Amino acid sequence: MAAPPAPGFVALGDLEEAASRVVPAEAWLYVQSGAVGEDSMRANRDAFRRRTLRPRVLADVSTIDLTTTLLDARVSAPVFVCPMARQGLFHPDGELATARAVRRAGLLGTYSTLSTRSPEEIASAAPDGLRWFQIYLQPEFSRTQELVERAEKAGYAALVLTVDAPLLGVRDRLAATPFILDPEHALGAGEGVRAPARAPAGGRGRYTLRAEAAATWTVLDDLQSITRLPVVVKGILTGEDARRAVAHGARGVCVSNHGGRQLDAAEAALDRLPEVVRAVGSDVEVYFDSGVRRASDALVALAMGARAVGLGRPVLWALAVGGEAGVDRLLSLFASELAATMALTGRRRIGEIDRTLLGEPRW
Amino acid sequence: MAAPPAPGFVALGDLEEAASRVVPAEAWLYVQSGAVGEDSMRANRDAFRRRTLRPRVLADVSTIDLTTTLLDARVSAPVFVCPMARQGLFHPDGELATARAVRRAGLLGTYSTLSTRSPEEIASAAPDGLRWFQIYLQPEFSRTQELVERAEKAGYAALVLTVDAPLLGVRDRLAATPFILDPEHALGAGEGVRAPARAPAGGRGRYTLRAEAAATWTVLDDLQSITRLPVVVKGILTGEDARRAVAHGARGVCVSNHGGRQLDAAEAALDRLPEVVRAVGSDVEVYFDSGVRRASDALVALAMGARAVGLGRPVLWALAVGGEAGVDRLLSLFASELAATMALTGRRRIGEIDRTLLGEPRW
Amino acid sequence: MAAPPAPGFVALGDLEEAASRVVPAEAWLYVQSGAVGEDSMRANRDAFRRRTLRPRVLADVSTIDLTTTLLDARVSAPVFVCPMARQGLFHPDGELATARAVRRAGLLGTYSTLSTRSPEEIASAAPDGLRWFQIYLQPEFSRTQELVERAEKAGYAALVLTVDAPLLGVRDRLAATPFILDPEHALGAGEGVRAPARAPAGGRGRYTLRAEAAATWTVLDDLQSITRLPVVVKGILTGEDARRAVAHGARGVCVSNHGGRQLDAAEAALDRLPEVVRAVGSDVEVYFDSGVRRASDALVALAMGARAVGLGRPVLWALAVGGEAGVDRLLSLFASELAATMALTGRRRIGEIDRTLLGEPRW
Amino acid sequence: MAAPPAPGFVALGDLEEAASRVVPAEAWLYVQSGAVGEDSMRANRDAFRRRTLRPRVLADVSTIDLTTTLLDARVSAPVFVCPMARQGLFHPDGELATARAVRRAGLLGTYSTLSTRSPEEIASAAPDGLRWFQIYLQPEFSRTQELVERAEKAGYAALVLTVDAPLLGVRDRLAATPFILDPEHALGAGEGVRAPARAPAGGRGRYTLRAEAAATWTVLDDLQSITRLPVVVKGILTGEDARRAVAHGARGVCVSNHGGRQLDAAEAALDRLPEVVRAVGSDVEVYFDSGVRRASDALVALAMGARAVGLGRPVLWALAVGGEAGVDRLLSLFASELAATMALTGRRRIGEIDRTLLGEPRW
Repeated sequence: MAAPPAPGFVALGDLEEAASRVVPAEAWLYVQSGAVGEDSMRANRDAFRRRTLRPRVLADVSTIDLTTTLLDARVSAPVFVCPMARQGLFHPDGELATARAVRRAGLLGTYSTLSTRSPEEIASAAPDGLRWFQIYLQPEFSRTQELVERAEKAGYAALVLTVDAPLLGVRDRLAATPFILDPEHALGAGEGVRAPARAPAGGRGRYTLRAEAAATWTVLDDLQSITRLPVVVKGILTGEDARRAVAHGARGVCVSNHGGRQLDAAEAALDRLPEVVRAVGSDVEVYFDSGVRRASDALVALAMGARAVGLGRPVLWALAVGGEAGVDRLLSLFASELAATMALTGRRRIGEIDRTLLGEPRW
Repeated sequence: MAAPPAPGFVALGDLEEAASRVVPAEAWLYVQSGAVGEDSMRANRDAFRRRTLRPRVLADVSTIDLTTTLLDARVSAPVFVCPMARQGLFHPDGELATARAVRRAGLLGTYSTLSTRSPEEIASAAPDGLRWFQIYLQPEFSRTQELVERAEKAGYAALVLTVDAPLLGVRDRLAATPFILDPEHALGAGEGVRAPARAPAGGRGRYTLRAEAAATWTVLDDLQSITRLPVVVKGILTGEDARRAVAHGARGVCVSNHGGRQLDAAEAALDRLPEVVRAVGSDVEVYFDSGVRRASDALVALAMGARAVGLGRPVLWALAVGGEAGVDRLLSLFASELAATMALTGRRRIGEIDRTLLGEPRW
Repeated sequence: MAAPPAPGFVALGDLEEAASRVVPAEAWLYVQSGAVGEDSMRANRDAFRRRTLRPRVLADVSTIDLTTTLLDARVSAPVFVCPMARQGLFHPDGELATARAVRRAGLLGTYSTLSTRSPEEIASAAPDGLRWFQIYLQPEFSRTQELVERAEKAGYAALVLTVDAPLLGVRDRLAATPFILDPEHALGAGEGVRAPARAPAGGRGRYTLRAEAAATWTVLDDLQSITRLPVVVKGILTGEDARRAVAHGARGVCVSNHGGRQLDAAEAALDRLPEVVRAVGSDVEVYFDSGVRRASDALVALAMGARAVGLGRPVLWALAVGGEAGVDRLLSLFASELAATMALTGRRRIGEIDRTLLGEPRW
Repeated sequence: MAAPPAPGFVALGDLEEAASRVVPAEAWLYVQSGAVGEDSMRANRDAFRRRTLRPRVLADVSTIDLTTTLLDARVSAPVFVCPMARQGLFHPDGELATARAVRRAGLLGTYSTLSTRSPEEIASAAPDGLRWFQIYLQPEFSRTQELVERAEKAGYAALVLTVDAPLLGVRDRLAATPFILDPEHALGAGEGVRAPARAPAGGRGRYTLRAEAAATWTVLDDLQSITRLPVVVKGILTGEDARRAVAHGARGVCVSNHGGRQLDAAEAALDRLPEVVRAVGSDVEVYFDSGVRRASDALVALAMGARAVGLGRPVLWALAVGGEAGVDRLLSLFASELAATMALTGRRRIGEIDRTLLGEPRW
């Protein structure tokens, strides 16, 4: 299965700008926006810029093996595609293109409740690919249950429950063009499926959120009672919450601040990773997303204890620039860069990545 | 009482720029200016940008209650409008528009000695609103006493004594247009009322300030001897001064560096809050202003021990952009954002906000 | 003696830009330039921006007294004018204008060996002003002795020996226009007087400096053997050197990195002040210059133990903008701002300034 | 042997911009580029900007002696020219011009396996100059051996084995113009000589590097078995690797992150120097390159324990601007600035440079 013709970017560092030239203005605001003043979004990148790796030399790096397992499924690299909504805004094929490229790369793809395409269509696009289904709790649990059952039937191997969005974060950049958040762009799973609410209702001191905001940790028990799929909890930033997730049966937690799109005053997601790893890293797999752009970011997160890292916005950029071929190229460049970076740090296998790889933070 | 038509800004982050397009040049210099090189003004914002909150999840945030009390009066949120002079520069209705919007929002309004409108007019604009009267000491105490008596009679519930302005801070930006500080813009309380002096008189090493600069802590005793209203001391930045305020009967202290308009070399006001809270936080209410722009700023200050936070410049911006409707919109967006931010940090009531909400400072 | 008409700047913060519009291009490079990449020059300002003062309130600041003494001579404020060469580049009256303005302000003026005007002319311009004479060691000590004798005869009250210039620091900005450093602009003291050498002679590993670079601490003994004037050593940045200066009879030391014009890799001068104060502050007066622009800078240095602070580049800017009247205005604004700043920090006299005035450094 | 006419730059600080005006676009990308996002490249400079020196005064600096020895060979200063490939891109004379200027200056020149000119041509250009030959391991050790033998025969005094390039670092800036890396620009040593591979081969998790990437520390033993020349290991950034280098017979190690061109997440090379000096500084000579631009950089590295520092990009800039005369000027300005900087810190000989020269880091 040969890769399609190469899209219009030749280096990972060119991708964002290349995308900025082809993405329609409203979709651009959508993908680039973060919460409020976007401090958390910037902090995500700053945190990576401050971290360093210790280069080691003359360690026989003639072969580099990136393979690892995620919840016992083998993947070609400790890299996954984040569950991102509304991919149809970026390319007519939307999640189908993503799924095909992810499968070709041998990676894990995770797909959003709010996809432009249905969970079944996405599964059909790459039937033998490894895929997990992301869940936004619905106001009625019966609706959530329907989604879970469809995901299970369509061959998704795990559920990713997003817990950092009891409502949508405030996004200044989208305030003037909120229509981009209209359901029509995210109806792949059906008309009745709800996105996180845009703002609390009420005023004069009393505000009400939609029913799903009433969820507590027992929702994990409820989910497990209706499915045999393992559940990963996404959007955890503290050791306390990670421990509760594990106590309620989560098989993995994903440290993420939603790409800086929910709570603007949050710390950089990366800076929260060590606490979560200390809390539950010996019990379950800890994944990471929010700010990963280059292979060295992945190595940093892995050295801090992550099992795998998610790519978010870069996938939408690549989708816009080249569709399936764009995502192919992104994933191929990223994996190749990961191999090169491991060679430069004297690591031959994922299992050789540990804390001794980390250097002193930069100023 | 329905809100007037929406003014020309849709996100809190747009407000300053929207205002910059409508505020006359001199009034813009007035509101935007800080002391000397404006380092303190910038530091106020930088301090908030460095602080972080710890997001907590799955905490049943289906209802959010922002209500609290300020000196035993119930308000819809721990947010007040700062006592800002010369509001007539920003809208013909000046403080009247502010007072109406504040009352509609169910918040506390504080009004300056140097308002464009008289204390009585402001009271009449929103008779049943909660309001405090800000006092600049006058050269003769008898004049101060007259102001206190008028405030008491007009139904103000407390006095806010500003102590960080024995004279006006040096403002480079206003040096070329000092007329904006002329009394005519601040004569609401009457012709005899004095603003802080602009510069010390004298030279060759000996300088004299106006009579009110001779005040010491006993002025608090004097004030209390002439009024039954509780006195809040505003402009405190050290634990020592806070303790003295309380020792002399203050019912509250407001940590503030006057929005960076008085001493330019001052620390960010936020960085001074913990010391004041440690010193007197268990004895009196501690309020905060200087640099609050977004709901997360309010949460940070509350988590550090503030009872409520004041909005300053944003109110003038909103007043300029939309008059009463502009302030309505500001206060409504701010409260809604506060509810949303509490939901994202797993807090349902103001009483659930404590130091465990704070994360590590950003670099 | 009334001040001349006001020159073209109304705030201290406007002065540099006002000067940039009137100073000829080459002279501008001369005054603005620092050593090499100008990191030290920037560091001088950054150090002040990071320091903070603790505002104190209700301290009866109705009168502010800035007077102090420098080597037992009374001055109107702890502020002096630095010994700056070639003032004729900035105004035809050069040092004469400076001397008249300094005298009118009741301050100490220090004048360079490399002045455009002779020491005698400068003395005549303001006979009853307090003035010190700055000495660059000459290749032959007999020449240095002549300068000392002239200064003594012309009523200079002390000698300021500059020790941080065994040769001129490398100045990239002046490399293309070195003529500005030609002797003609600094011949006030006579044709035989030498400025610091521009670069070491030699090559291939062996370099020779001019004879005066051979000086050691005994030069202080030599100087004292030929004059009754007290000697201040300028350009000290370490405790070790300060102690040696005092051991050899210095009556004062001036902490300075020459405005960032000599060693570019030097720390900010301000950051070196505490070490010098600890070493010799109880034995002799410690002065400070390098980066002082605003009154709060002066207060910071005084709080850290300086006896007085020097104004450098601002004086040249003011001279260019308004000649004598410009320097008048600068010194008047600075002193007035100093009085105002003391009022805002609750200090009434110079003697009330101590370390408790300092707040935490800013990030 | 008089220096040729002066080239078009008069200060070290002007050199980069002067070069930017004459270097062809592709060659400019080549010399300026760093790895990935170029964070390490910037960090190299930032690290120097943060370091400070303590100026000392009145220390008799009338003569400054920069001479030292490198592996027992006397040089005029502790400065060498880094082994940089493809110098013919910058001037037709390429490495020949460099070699002549280096010899004239009495410094050590190191020359790359990937030079435009052959090792023999370079030797002939300056037969009596001190030169070391840089080795990139070749896929077959017999090829490496041929290079070693040619170097030995051509009078190179040591071998510099580069160990931080098992493959070429990812360079975004060159992705669009990779032809600059084509062998034709680096064929001085012959058609069969190989540059580091551009990217690992493979995909889907398994990557293969070229044979030389299999090298381990025993390659040092192999090298020493075929040559009498001392071996210096270049590209060491940890104490562990430095100790292994010494254990395997290295006579020196060069702390370097390849000018920020290999691993982008690496710490600034300067920040890694102390660890390496602690590990092996008492056993072998420790050299440094990566980010040295000014004399104070050299003094900082020397004070931290380096025996000598290498100049890299500035030599290519100077070569482009003025050929041999340009490099002459660069080396002459650098040495003169080094002498001046030593004078300003009270150091007369290289042997007087030690840790007491270092000040506190800047913020």
